[in-house]
Amino acid sequence: MCEANAYLLGNDGESDETLLMEAVDKIEPDEDGIRLVSIFGEQKFIKGHVHSLSLVDHKVYIKQ
Amino acid sequence: MCEANAYLLGNDGESDETLLMEAVDKIEPDEDGIRLVSIFGEQKFIKGHVHSLSLVDHKVYIKQ
Repeated sequence: MCEANAYLLGNDGESDETLLMEAVDKIEPDEDGIRLVSIFGEQKFIKGHVHSLSLVDHKVYIKQ
Repeated sequence: MCEANAYLLGNDGESDETLLMEAVDKIEPDEDGIRLVSIFGEQKFIKGHVHSLSLVDHKVYIKQ
């Protein structure tokens, strides 16, 4: 499986990241934000956008 | 390896997609667009943003 963990980026650069959701499969635009869906079907809405990806590291960075 | 293929989404819905780059590792913001970097080090700049992800399907959708 090639899911990734989604992190919320803060304003203090790369070290300022908070885990939002593990095992993310899908991210889709939803109204004024995005909806994250994990491989387990868990869903989370975030007012933000995909900032960057590092797929080999299994990381997706979200910014508000 | 958990790289994905990046597709450019057109305006005709899900069927309107063009392969931009295979084996994408990183996507990062770059000036007024994004820079895609493959696992082979190949780079491509696109004036667009990450629209959605479907990681288990190894797909990243970009929209201009």
